[in-house]
Amino acid sequence: MIKKINHIGVAVKNLGLSAELFNKLFDRPQPFTESVPEQKATIAFYPLGESSVELIESTSQESSLSKFIEKRGEGIHHLCLEVDDLQEEIIRLKGHGFQFVNDIPSEGGDGYWVAFLHPKSTNGVLIELCEKTN
Amino acid sequence: MIKKINHIGVAVKNLGLSAELFNKLFDRPQPFTESVPEQKATIAFYPLGESSVELIESTSQESSLSKFIEKRGEGIHHLCLEVDDLQEEIIRLKGHGFQFVNDIPSEGGDGYWVAFLHPKSTNGVLIELCEKTN
Repeated sequence: MIKKINHIGVAVKNLGLSAELFNKLFDRPQPFTESVPEQKATIAFYPLGESSVELIESTSQESSLSKFIEKRGEGIHHLCLEVDDLQEEIIRLKGHGFQFVNDIPSEGGDGYWVAFLHPKSTNGVLIELCEKTN
Repeated sequence: MIKKINHIGVAVKNLGLSAELFNKLFDRPQPFTESVPEQKATIAFYPLGESSVELIESTSQESSLSKFIEKRGEGIHHLCLEVDDLQEEIIRLKGHGFQFVNDIPSEGGDGYWVAFLHPKSTNGVLIELCEKTN
């Protein structure tokens, strides 16, 4: 079952400069940041109600995030939906014909396991599914 | 003050076809739909926790939504943040140098007043601010 929007991921070129901008936008102090080597990214978190907005800077020029920015510029990169059972959702969605970038969950940082649906099968929306496991 | 993510807007070409897809994706029945003439759009709502995902089909080929799809294809179009006082937020953000598409609030449907920040001043993210007024 899909529980809520966990976060919106925003692709940025320079996390420091973008954080200065989003601190003003959200009227917040300097955000918590985390390095996620599994996703080749550094992330800054802005909690907003039960969800958050995350700024993501790629740490590799070869990552899909870097290619996204190269092609489309900075902006909203993905929508992350929190589910209660990631394996069950992957099976359910594959049964409907949805395609996954990775249908074997990977570590997403902060105790989450994640899987990405391919935007080709979701009207151009890159959707991350996540489950909190600890 | 920014309270929460009100919704994520997804630009689609054909609301009927996309609703069939997202019904499966979210495991939901046929969504509630609404015509919003002020925004030249028809919208389908999928509540997810305290937020929602909205599919948006343009009703005019001249709209900014149609131009967005023409240029970038279907996908996430904007992020809507719910605020407690829209006028106050507009004044606060203009004071920080943020640019608005419309700094005079317009009707967004369902009792909301809305204003859009220009993505040029927000790292490529089209941000809608909304306030529930009734």
